[in-house]
Amino acid sequence: MKIAVIGGDGTGPEVTAEALKVMDAAAKLEGFTIETTEFGFGGDHYLKTGEILPEGAVDQLRKFDAIFLGAIGHPDVAPGILEKGLLLQLRFQLDQYINLRPVKLYPGVDTPLKDKGPEEIDFVVVRENTEDLYAGIGGFLKKGTADEVATQTAIYTRKGCERWLRWAFEYTQKRNNPKGKKLTLVAKTNVLTYGHDLVWRTFQEVAKDYPDVEPDYNHVDACCMWMVKNPEYYDVIATTNMFGDIITDLAGILQGGMGVAAGGNINPDAGGTSMYEPMGGSAPKYTGKNVINPIAAISAGAMLLEHTGQPAAGARVLKAIQTVTGTKMKSQSAGKMGYGTTEVGDLVVEALGG
Amino acid sequence: MKIAVIGGDGTGPEVTAEALKVMDAAAKLEGFTIETTEFGFGGDHYLKTGEILPEGAVDQLRKFDAIFLGAIGHPDVAPGILEKGLLLQLRFQLDQYINLRPVKLYPGVDTPLKDKGPEEIDFVVVRENTEDLYAGIGGFLKKGTADEVATQTAIYTRKGCERWLRWAFEYTQKRNNPKGKKLTLVAKTNVLTYGHDLVWRTFQEVAKDYPDVEPDYNHVDACCMWMVKNPEYYDVIATTNMFGDIITDLAGILQGGMGVAAGGNINPDAGGTSMYEPMGGSAPKYTGKNVINPIAAISAGAMLLEHTGQPAAGARVLKAIQTVTGTKMKSQSAGKMGYGTTEVGDLVVEALGG
Ligand SMILES: CC(C)[C@H](C(=O)O)[C@@H](O)C(=O)O
Ligand SMILES: CC(C)[C@H](C(=O)O)[C@@H](O)C(=O)O
Repeated sequence: MKIAVIGGDGTGPEVTAEALKVMDAAAKLEGFTIETTEFGFGGDHYLKTGEILPEGAVDQLRKFDAIFLGAIGHPDVAPGILEKGLLLQLRFQLDQYINLRPVKLYPGVDTPLKDKGPEEIDFVVVRENTEDLYAGIGGFLKKGTADEVATQTAIYTRKGCERWLRWAFEYTQKRNNPKGKKLTLVAKTNVLTYGHDLVWRTFQEVAKDYPDVEPDYNHVDACCMWMVKNPEYYDVIATTNMFGDIITDLAGILQGGMGVAAGGNINPDAGGTSMYEPMGGSAPKYTGKNVINPIAAISAGAMLLEHTGQPAAGARVLKAIQTVTGTKMKSQSAGKMGYGTTEVGDLVVEALGG
Repeated sequence: MKIAVIGGDGTGPEVTAEALKVMDAAAKLEGFTIETTEFGFGGDHYLKTGEILPEGAVDQLRKFDAIFLGAIGHPDVAPGILEKGLLLQLRFQLDQYINLRPVKLYPGVDTPLKDKGPEEIDFVVVRENTEDLYAGIGGFLKKGTADEVATQTAIYTRKGCERWLRWAFEYTQKRNNPKGKKLTLVAKTNVLTYGHDLVWRTFQEVAKDYPDVEPDYNHVDACCMWMVKNPEYYDVIATTNMFGDIITDLAGILQGGMGVAAGGNINPDAGGTSMYEPMGGSAPKYTGKNVINPIAAISAGAMLLEHTGQPAAGARVLKAIQTVTGTKMKSQSAGKMGYGTTEVGDLVVEALGG
C-alpha cells in the first residue's frame, strides 16, 4: 500500500507519526507493507515559497493508494488561505465527494452529555464534499460603499446529489445496524426551496432502490437539538456540505472532541484517491511538547486501512484504540492523557495483538 | 398596550392563552392594560380559505404595538407552506431584522449537559432575520433531468449587516455582563469568502464605535462544539440568518428545549412592529390535552413586555417563571410537568406578586 503523507503544520507531524507507527504494526500483523512518501506542504512551505500546492502536486498525489493528512493551519498565515488552498483544493481536484465521519464514543472517553454512553453515541455522518456553498461562487456589488451587496451561491447538481446519496444508502445497508437500517437526510427544505428541493427529490428517488433502508428526514435545526437530546435516534445521516461541516463538529464534541474524531474525504470511484485526517487543528501551542492526543490521527489511520482494501487491519486498529481509551488513558485532552503522545501510540501498537 | 394575537395551530392557542393570562396579571400589577385582538391565521384558516395572510393583513398588524404568535404548523399542510407564508412573510414585510434568542437555563430546569447549570448557560443570540439564504432566491436548470442544476443564493447587504451588528453591539453594552462585555460573531469567513467577507468587514468597522465591547469571532462549526463544551464562554453571539437558525436550536436544547425557549422577531426602528413567539412547534399530538408546557410562551410574553415599553412587567414575569420552574414544576416535558398547562399558567400568575 502506497500512502502519501502530508504531516502539515503544528502538531500535525507528531500525530501523523503515531498513526503511521500503528498502521505499520497492523500491516505487519496482517501481512502487507505500507510505503510512505512525505510531502512537506503546509504553512511553513507557504511562508517560504509562496506556494501552497506546487504545480503538478495533485497529479503526483493521484498516483497513491491514499493520502494521510495531519493538520494544516499556521499562526502566521491568514485563516482560510491554507484551508482553501490545500484541504478544499484536494477535496475538489481529487473529487472526494464523500466526507465520512463515524461518530462513536469509545469506551472510557468522556462525553459532555448526561446519561449517554457508547451505546447511545454511535452513528455516522455522510457529508457531501464537493458542492453547496463550498463552490466558492459569489461576488460584490458596490464594494466598500454603504450600498454594498455581497452574494454567495450554493450550487447542487443532480449528479452530485445522486452519487453521494446512493453511496449513503449503500453504506447504511452495509452498516446493517441491528436496531434497523435508517438513513436520515438532514437539510432545510422549508427554506432552501430550490437547492434542497433537488436534494430532496433525489433522496426520494434513490431511496426506492434501497427498500430495506428506512428513509428519514430532519431539518438541520431540529437535528442539532435531537443529536444532543437523543443521539441514539441516528444510524446514518446524509447531509449537504455546509450543514455537514456544522453537524460533524457538533457530533465530534459528543464523541469526545478534537482529540478523538477523524474523517475521510473519499472518492469511491475506481481509481479514486481518498484522504484521511484527524479532525483536530494544528494546535500550535502544544507543538513539540509530546502532549497532543494522537487518537484522532490513529482513528484516521484505521479508516484509511478500512477503506483502502485492508479492512481487517482497520478493524484491528479500531479495537486497539478502544482498549487503550477504555483501560489506559486518563483523559482525551492534550496534556491530561496520563501519557505522552508517543506513549499513547506505543500503547495502541501493544494492544494490536489482542 | 395593543397586541395582535395569532394563536395559530395545534397547541399554539393553549400556550398563548396562558401567556396572555400572565401578561394581563403583570400589567395590572404594574398599572397598565393590555388590549388584544385575535387573528385566526394558521393551518385551519389556510385549509378552509386557501389563503395564509389575507390581503391587507400585514398593514393591519403593523398598527399594533406588538404581535404574539403561538405556533404554526398543521399535519394536513405540506411543511414549508405556512412557515414561508406566515412566519417568514411577517419577518420580512415587517422588516423584523433582529431575531433575539436569550439562552438562559432557569433554576430547576434540566439541561442535557453534564456539570453545567444556570451560571454557565446564560447567553444571548442576536440572529440577523431578513437576509442570507432566507432571501428565497434560486432556481433550476434542466429540472427533472439527469443534468439538473439547482442554485440557492445567500444575499447580504452592507445596510442589513450594519443595522443588525450595531444593534448587537448596543445590546451587549446594555446587557453589561459583569464577566466582561463580549460580542462573538459566528460565521464562516474561510469558506463564504464573498458573503461573509462583507459581514466580517462590517463587524470590524462597527466594533470601533463600541470600544468597551470585546469583539470576538468563531467559525460556526467551532461554535457548535464550544457551545456544548463551554457555554459559559459566550456573552452575546451575533450570527447570520441561516447559521442563527441552527445555533439557536442547539442553544435551545441546552436551556431545556422547546418547552422553555422563546424568541423575538424585532424591528427596533421607530414605529416598527415586533413579534414574539415560543420556539416549540404546534405539537398536534398534545393538542387540547392540557399537557403542553406554556413556559416558552410565557417567556415570549415577558420578552414582549420588556421590549414594548414595559420592562418592569417583563422582569416581573421572568422572575415569576423562575420561581415556578425552580420550586414547583417536576419537568419541562409535556405531560410530565406535575401540573396541567393552565395550572402552570396559574402558578406563574401567583408568583408575580413575589
Ligand atoms: C477547514 C475548513 C475549510 C473545513 C471545512 O469547512 O470543511 C473544516 O471545517 C472541515 O470540516 O473539514
Ligand atoms: C419555521 C422556520 C421557517 C424557522 C426558520 O427557519 O427561521 C424556524 O426554524 C425558526 O428558527 O424560527
